[in-house]
Amino acid sequence: MVPVTTSAAPLSALSADDLAARLTTVRAAYDELKAQGLKLDLTRGKPGADQLDLSNGLLTLPTTYLDRSGTDTRNYGGLEGLAEIREIFADLLGVDVASVVAGGNSSLTMMHQVLTALLLKGGPDSPRPWGQEPVVKFICPVPGYDRHFTMLAELGIEMLSVPMTPDGPDPVAVRALVANDPSVKGMWIVPTYANPTGAVCSAEVAAELMAMPTAAPDFRILWDNAYAVHHLTDVETKSADALGLAAASGHPNRPIMFASTSKITFAGAGVAALAASPENKAWYLQRLNFAAIGPDKINQLRHVEFFGDADGVRAHMRKHRALIAPKFAAVEDALSSRLTGLGIATWTVPTGGYFVNLDVLDGTASRVVALAKEAGIALTPAGSAYPHGNDPDDRNIRLAPTYPVLDEVVLAMAGVAVCVELAALEKLSA
Amino acid sequence: MVPVTTSAAPLSALSADDLAARLTTVRAAYDELKAQGLKLDLTRGKPGADQLDLSNGLLTLPTTYLDRSGTDTRNYGGLEGLAEIREIFADLLGVDVASVVAGGNSSLTMMHQVLTALLLKGGPDSPRPWGQEPVVKFICPVPGYDRHFTMLAELGIEMLSVPMTPDGPDPVAVRALVANDPSVKGMWIVPTYANPTGAVCSAEVAAELMAMPTAAPDFRILWDNAYAVHHLTDVETKSADALGLAAASGHPNRPIMFASTSKITFAGAGVAALAASPENKAWYLQRLNFAAIGPDKINQLRHVEFFGDADGVRAHMRKHRALIAPKFAAVEDALSSRLTGLGIATWTVPTGGYFVNLDVLDGTASRVVALAKEAGIALTPAGSAYPHGNDPDDRNIRLAPTYPVLDEVVLAMAGVAVCVELAALEKLSA
Repeated sequence: MVPVTTSAAPLSALSADDLAARLTTVRAAYDELKAQGLKLDLTRGKPGADQLDLSNGLLTLPTTYLDRSGTDTRNYGGLEGLAEIREIFADLLGVDVASVVAGGNSSLTMMHQVLTALLLKGGPDSPRPWGQEPVVKFICPVPGYDRHFTMLAELGIEMLSVPMTPDGPDPVAVRALVANDPSVKGMWIVPTYANPTGAVCSAEVAAELMAMPTAAPDFRILWDNAYAVHHLTDVETKSADALGLAAASGHPNRPIMFASTSKITFAGAGVAALAASPENKAWYLQRLNFAAIGPDKINQLRHVEFFGDADGVRAHMRKHRALIAPKFAAVEDALSSRLTGLGIATWTVPTGGYFVNLDVLDGTASRVVALAKEAGIALTPAGSAYPHGNDPDDRNIRLAPTYPVLDEVVLAMAGVAVCVELAALEKLSA
Repeated sequence: MVPVTTSAAPLSALSADDLAARLTTVRAAYDELKAQGLKLDLTRGKPGADQLDLSNGLLTLPTTYLDRSGTDTRNYGGLEGLAEIREIFADLLGVDVASVVAGGNSSLTMMHQVLTALLLKGGPDSPRPWGQEPVVKFICPVPGYDRHFTMLAELGIEMLSVPMTPDGPDPVAVRALVANDPSVKGMWIVPTYANPTGAVCSAEVAAELMAMPTAAPDFRILWDNAYAVHHLTDVETKSADALGLAAASGHPNRPIMFASTSKITFAGAGVAALAASPENKAWYLQRLNFAAIGPDKINQLRHVEFFGDADGVRAHMRKHRALIAPKFAAVEDALSSRLTGLGIATWTVPTGGYFVNLDVLDGTASRVVALAKEAGIALTPAGSAYPHGNDPDDRNIRLAPTYPVLDEVVLAMAGVAVCVELAALEKLSA
């Protein structure tokens, strides 16, 4: 991730007259934009139809319903998932196959299962169920994934923000929060190509997080490796070895890892997985055993036949990259050609994942989103990357360029750049 | 359901000498049985491979990924499920399509979601989350479905047994429990072809349960209609209209209905559904929204293409019946030819569902299961149809004849009959 810093001719240095003139010009540009009657959407990290087409082979698979052990996958059972799909996840995530559970179509559901089980039952090392504590707090690196935060809010878990740095969550801030407060029970991380900044948690930061002393004996790091293999460049970054680092530092139960094929095959019909220590895995399966008889093993087998092995997944991801890297380049082109030097925005140039993080002039993010909406360009609501949707600086906007076709990304981002500048000029003129 | 009552020459009327002689004969028969080295399994209500074959057409479906509204089912979204599969469930369950949510591969998972949400959040009419009550109790008709009971035990919910009659849960017993105790928050029912007795909840009993006054304002009836269309005779019994009866009696939020295609298509890869009042449905989707982005819509579309409509499901179920009705007949033949008149067993002759309920001489069920096991015939553990696996009379055994092939059912049931008589003779001779 390379944050682009603007450098020359900042708007804030303009005279009142120049500012007024520029506001007139940009307002005219915005009126032209509105006149185009656009209907574009950069809100969600959804794969485009061309990306989904890459996996259409799944629609006529599997060719057999027997797994390699001879088990009839059409019937009940097999709570931990098929061995062959667990092997693929293990390889991709750099963990032992014994640590992996393959589930249904949603890793978000697995995260929710883990949190509700911790609340209702407690983990293997919990003094009592989390729900019986007076208060439970979670550390949230910001900006972060909105669904992580809304899940905590729904479950009554308090959120403590820490800054997301280009190398992962700020370990000093995290350490300060966990050291003495046993009500701080866990934290979220998207370790690789984080939503929305694209940051990659370094091995050093991961090691610190796994080793740090925590007042809570059952501190959990929910390691949502949603974009582990979702590279946008030739550098296919390896995720930090969370399970290995945790075990080595004497906290094997600290991390629980999640991943899925949602942005690999079909976003709605993929396979999700969880990886954890032996004790955590046994605990999870024990809970799951009261809620399910087994995952959709046919869909797991379908994926195994489609990919063959982990290298099949990696080759497939290069096809995704060929389709979406140009969209990310279009975002970068639009922002840098129109905003560089104005001193009103910084943004990320991610090397993987699904998002570009755009920070606009403080206090203008909501206005930018409103202006864009009026011009027919849907953006994620300002603040959504913060707990309770509250960005204290009102500056953060998450851009998701994968779903629209390339021409639409180009159009939309040209429009976004106009909105960013207009909102800044309004603010500076006020 | 016709309970068979034994009538003539009961073993209990034999003289001591005759009893001893008969014990010797039956012991010899049991030794012969053991010598056969059988390896048969009547434990679980799983479809047989021939039943699963009926749905192999699913393996190469769907032929399109667009639903009839043009939505790309490969992508995220659509939390309530595809309209076309919801229509099929609505027709089969006799409810309005607006009440239906179609989910993943497991109705058990939906039940667990509902219970955990009630514990953590409370329902729309709850004074507070159930988990904040000093105690929560659930009514459990017995014998009943073991997974219902283990789920409650896992979640710390106390169980109160009521007798299952041939017309459903004993409404007098239920009424007495719910009238004055606000900690009695709900009950289970398998309304149609109940697990394991095959009982069908009559419209009258259903009406009483939906109308009865309850001390808890948020009393819930978890209406697990797992076998709604799983007929074993020409009489295709219609389930009672739980949602309609509840709404008519002023308790629209009382029932939540569950069903799935697990025993219609593939047991591990079907589609589950929930149906409830508008308020309950909105509540469920609101909770689900924090835990999932949408169900596997491709699998839903696959099922829609395969069946076409609800009549397609009904026609498909007649093919199941043709395969499994002979197995149920074999159970009935073995039991009636070997045990009728001995006064040591009664059993059900179900007109639908997956089980035969066998009640043996009080105090001998565990012994029968042990004897069968030693002879290579796996039966569900005695007592498993009761909360905490505790059958106070030690007489109940659940027989599940669908999974083995017919010849195996015949062999196994001949063996079971010998074990039932041997255990009874041992007991009577003691």
